[in-house]
Amino acid sequence: MYYVWLTIALVIAVLGLAYAVNAFKQIMAKDAGDAKMQEIAKAVQDGGRAFLHAEYKWLAVFVGVVFVLLCMGTDDGESQFLGWKTGVAFLLGSLASGGAGYFGMHCATRAAVRTTQAAKTSLGGALDVAFKSGTVMGMSVVGLGLLGISGLMILFRATDVNFVNYVLGFSFGASSIALFARVGGGIYTKAADVGGDLVGKVEAGIPEDDPRNPAVIADNVGDNVGDVAGMGADLFESYCGAIISTAIIGWELSPAGNADMMTSLLLYPIVLAAIGVVASFLGTFRVKAEDESKLSSALFSGLIAASIFLVFGAAALTAIMQPQPLRGTGLTEQIGHWNVFFSVVIGLAVGVLIGKVTEYYTSEKMAPAQTIAEQSKTGAATNIIHGLATGMASTWIPTLLLALAIWGCNEIAGMYGICVAAVGMLSTLGISLGVDAYGPVADNAGGLAEMSHQPPEVRQRTDSLDATGNTTAAIGKGFAIGSAALTALALFSAYKVAAKTELGLENANVVMGLLVGAMLPFLFSSMAMKAVGKAANAMVEEVRRQFREIPGLKEGTGGQADYARCVEISTKGALREMVAPGVLAVAAPIAMGMIFGKAAVGGLLAGATGAGVMMALFMANAGGAWDNAKKYIEAGHLGGKGSDVHKAAVTGDTVGDPFKDTAGPSINILMKLMTIASLIALPLFKG
Amino acid sequence: MYYVWLTIALVIAVLGLAYAVNAFKQIMAKDAGDAKMQEIAKAVQDGGRAFLHAEYKWLAVFVGVVFVLLCMGTDDGESQFLGWKTGVAFLLGSLASGGAGYFGMHCATRAAVRTTQAAKTSLGGALDVAFKSGTVMGMSVVGLGLLGISGLMILFRATDVNFVNYVLGFSFGASSIALFARVGGGIYTKAADVGGDLVGKVEAGIPEDDPRNPAVIADNVGDNVGDVAGMGADLFESYCGAIISTAIIGWELSPAGNADMMTSLLLYPIVLAAIGVVASFLGTFRVKAEDESKLSSALFSGLIAASIFLVFGAAALTAIMQPQPLRGTGLTEQIGHWNVFFSVVIGLAVGVLIGKVTEYYTSEKMAPAQTIAEQSKTGAATNIIHGLATGMASTWIPTLLLALAIWGCNEIAGMYGICVAAVGMLSTLGISLGVDAYGPVADNAGGLAEMSHQPPEVRQRTDSLDATGNTTAAIGKGFAIGSAALTALALFSAYKVAAKTELGLENANVVMGLLVGAMLPFLFSSMAMKAVGKAANAMVEEVRRQFREIPGLKEGTGGQADYARCVEISTKGALREMVAPGVLAVAAPIAMGMIFGKAAVGGLLAGATGAGVMMALFMANAGGAWDNAKKYIEAGHLGGKGSDVHKAAVTGDTVGDPFKDTAGPSINILMKLMTIASLIALPLFKG
Repeated sequence: MYYVWLTIALVIAVLGLAYAVNAFKQIMAKDAGDAKMQEIAKAVQDGGRAFLHAEYKWLAVFVGVVFVLLCMGTDDGESQFLGWKTGVAFLLGSLASGGAGYFGMHCATRAAVRTTQAAKTSLGGALDVAFKSGTVMGMSVVGLGLLGISGLMILFRATDVNFVNYVLGFSFGASSIALFARVGGGIYTKAADVGGDLVGKVEAGIPEDDPRNPAVIADNVGDNVGDVAGMGADLFESYCGAIISTAIIGWELSPAGNADMMTSLLLYPIVLAAIGVVASFLGTFRVKAEDESKLSSALFSGLIAASIFLVFGAAALTAIMQPQPLRGTGLTEQIGHWNVFFSVVIGLAVGVLIGKVTEYYTSEKMAPAQTIAEQSKTGAATNIIHGLATGMASTWIPTLLLALAIWGCNEIAGMYGICVAAVGMLSTLGISLGVDAYGPVADNAGGLAEMSHQPPEVRQRTDSLDATGNTTAAIGKGFAIGSAALTALALFSAYKVAAKTELGLENANVVMGLLVGAMLPFLFSSMAMKAVGKAANAMVEEVRRQFREIPGLKEGTGGQADYARCVEISTKGALREMVAPGVLAVAAPIAMGMIFGKAAVGGLLAGATGAGVMMALFMANAGGAWDNAKKYIEAGHLGGKGSDVHKAAVTGDTVGDPFKDTAGPSINILMKLMTIASLIALPLFKG
Repeated sequence: MYYVWLTIALVIAVLGLAYAVNAFKQIMAKDAGDAKMQEIAKAVQDGGRAFLHAEYKWLAVFVGVVFVLLCMGTDDGESQFLGWKTGVAFLLGSLASGGAGYFGMHCATRAAVRTTQAAKTSLGGALDVAFKSGTVMGMSVVGLGLLGISGLMILFRATDVNFVNYVLGFSFGASSIALFARVGGGIYTKAADVGGDLVGKVEAGIPEDDPRNPAVIADNVGDNVGDVAGMGADLFESYCGAIISTAIIGWELSPAGNADMMTSLLLYPIVLAAIGVVASFLGTFRVKAEDESKLSSALFSGLIAASIFLVFGAAALTAIMQPQPLRGTGLTEQIGHWNVFFSVVIGLAVGVLIGKVTEYYTSEKMAPAQTIAEQSKTGAATNIIHGLATGMASTWIPTLLLALAIWGCNEIAGMYGICVAAVGMLSTLGISLGVDAYGPVADNAGGLAEMSHQPPEVRQRTDSLDATGNTTAAIGKGFAIGSAALTALALFSAYKVAAKTELGLENANVVMGLLVGAMLPFLFSSMAMKAVGKAANAMVEEVRRQFREIPGLKEGTGGQADYARCVEISTKGALREMVAPGVLAVAAPIAMGMIFGKAAVGGLLAGATGAGVMMALFMANAGGAWDNAKKYIEAGHLGGKGSDVHKAAVTGDTVGDPFKDTAGPSINILMKLMTIASLIALPLFKG
């Protein structure tokens, strides 16, 4: 049955990719609008490509070096995480993640202008283009992820009994790309945004999205680089990490000598993910809306439909495969297969709930953001204090949900239950990432409408698409954090099993590692935030220079802004600044392991996950709440745009930018990457 | 030898208290200045007393309820943390901590006016009064702490073999007072400060420390309530917690059947603390300075002298007592007694170093605060972003220092080594708290000089005392966090030993608890910060009302502000708002233990300590850096006072206030109190 199941998964993966390619073709067949629109869109497309080309050049060097190191590493015959097979898997993982990001962004930058054009006729048509572009990203991620994993599982099976560990290289490759895509992309997008606003809006007094601002294209590129390619790489990593770590744990928890059960436990997460691709595909048909009030519910109903399909599919799969893992290593009690199924359902439910909690804490329709707006009446300081406090408070419900999921899954299905919950949460990624990646396309479509001076009804349609996109983006961010946390825990389970060391808090090295681990998200966030500042300063200089040297640009009396130069500045700044935090993430756990041993690394990973989840939630939600507090005021409350209250809220929003778009999301990667790097480098660790 | 050693400790404790009383008498014998000065000073004294009386009324109820619960709790005959003996110890601990806080503040509010008066003659005389007042607080804390611990050790010895656990009740009592003193005091001081500034400085445009502002006395009271009584209670808790947990661990790690060694290990931390009292006393003689440039070095040399005395004393004590613990529970290897001595030295050194790192990150003479000032040029948002990033970055060196101390002490002296390092760090508290508590006295003396319109040379002398006080306060804050962390770990060691459960990260309940624990400092900080906002709003209303209703007050043409009413408002607000976070701190670990068991609580404590140390460092240092960035600008840099750069820096400082004076310091208590509460409630926990 081994090859049969994997072939099924492989075929579904290919079908998912075929869907993505087909959807892309459908988008490209749409009208791309007038010459002005196409000209602007082309600048964004070129800028996006320029960034990715530059980034991938750096990444090629990094990936090459790590590949060589991995191949040089000797397989110690027992834990087997090093060696050329891991190297090959790593290479493929990097290529797959990089490819998905490239294709997703290629499509998004083309879909935006077609969304604007479609908005000239109807809202429903515009939604169709923007959402379809999101699913191109979503289906590329799940298709390439599943293809890589099942392909490697087929390939490596013949070579070795302990072959699953090699597949982890695929996840490591995905993680490496994700780190640089998220950190680099996050710095890029905020450097362009903050730098452009500081000179354009504040100094020169020209509105947002005005084509006179030389940074305006870089800003639009940034949305794609950060929210499409970055988010895609982040979730690609979670997706692969969750599936592979569950397979590893399943293989460890098979009752001795029962080859059929081993196959079942090994492949259950992979086939479950394949069912998720089908469920996502079916869910996409529910996403249709002709008027504004139904936009949000259309997207959400697609997600719910996919989840329901998944639950039925998972039930059928469970009945057929009957996965019955041991409760934990060293324990002989076997778990009933329906308990495994319930863990999948818990994971799926918690993912949706965490997203909803994020929406509550950040939505302008809810109390938290409105209170921040209210607090802006006494100035920027009280706005900031309340934003920080709101972000900190927003950690409690998601944490309790995660804690209950961990406890519940462990009670009913042991360690395998926790891991499989992560897969359940991520299984409908094809559509949930689609809903999420729709946001930046809608945002860009709005920008294009503004820059190409479309009639007000077009702008109004793109605005309602964008408003819905902000909500789905908030949900998506919460989901990304929740799934990163559960994936990190699943990977951590694999570490615990592979390390074969006691990780008791009685051990001083574990406690020491825990403290250092808890510190890393703070240091990492600090580096990311400072990086934005530095890159933004370079952008400020360039925009000032153009306003000074290009006659008539600022006044709008002629003079063409040099958009490409701003894109280049932001690209260079982002790539330069992403190196230090990137190296920290990979080097810290490995250095800890080589100096202080496996137990210290176990503590480090636990500490980094604990503090990391909180920092990610804190920063993402504080940033989101500040943003929407400002939007709430801009909608005409508390004095509206231009009032002192609004100015205070703008300060909060500016502080929130690097929080929610750079530092916060990067922590997701940090948690996962450190665990994978520790697993891979395990043979090098002491004791 | 048991009673001999304890009697020595007891006598030294009494001598320490005698020093405190004598120093207080010397201060009271000084000239209290003219009638105007005495009038203002009396208002501050009355305000401080009013706050403490109101706070102690609430506390009496809390302490009474917990006392009854403790007495009702049945001693399970094995872990023995409940029962009437623990109850009595708890009651005494509350009384001792409350008493030390009361006496220290009583003295500080009287010393301030005498410092101002002495500053009329010479700087040296003023330093003498202010520093002496600090040592009254310091010596009261160590004297009462040591007296209580050694007294209880003598009393309980006769009743039971497992008597040490009861003494932990003393520490629990101290913790309970500390929680309310730190949280309540922190809210009080910032509500008065922020509320007073918002109306006085911003709306009415009158300068700081102007007697027309009705909140000015409440603000001065706040310095004493927060920085004297609050800080004292915090360190009283650390002091007792470190000593008692080391005794408990020493008792657990005695080689079986060796009664002499048990006595030695049990009493080593207590006698070491007694030597620290003597060392602190000797150190005070080094604190003398006649000109401004030597102020800081005079204070620091007192600290260094005491440390050197302690090292020699500890060496002698080690040679005599020869403490040789087992490496850990269940391990039979015995540790050489010089290894224990080296752990003491490591603890002492790390305490001083963490303080120095804090100084680097917050001092206006160093790069971090200056960079924040520099970033204020582009507005409040960049000031805030860089302040937050600096605070986050400031966690790394202290964490590595703590991690190395934990690793090093464990390598050379096992679990006992880690605990004894905490005692070493805190042993010179008599003088280090003195140096720290000198700050608010100097600050108040400056305020008094301003309010009573003293000649410029007086104000200049108090200003230089105050500037030095800011530096020592920064060092003191770092020290308080470092010692809280190490004390929490020492207490955690006691929990690990007493829980008799495996606390492996392999256990899902431990991981679940760790996540919840990491969340608690975030939730707690959020509550504390919001509480400041609410209490400050009440103050704003009151100050506005007085300006409106009292004729001639705002204009300074007559009309007396009702200071007492503002003090009352701040008191009520603080006490009302401290309840929820206080209950959270005690209830969270107990609920976790009763529902999910001992292992989950172990995870919770580890997670809370890891994330707690980072949050405490982050918030304290960000706040300190913002404060000094503002002061750097006020000293004439970057445009000086009143410039736009200065306005941006003021916003940062306002955000930093609840960070550094309310939420940050409260986390210290949270970490320790949760561990003690878990230890005491252990018999109630599941499996």
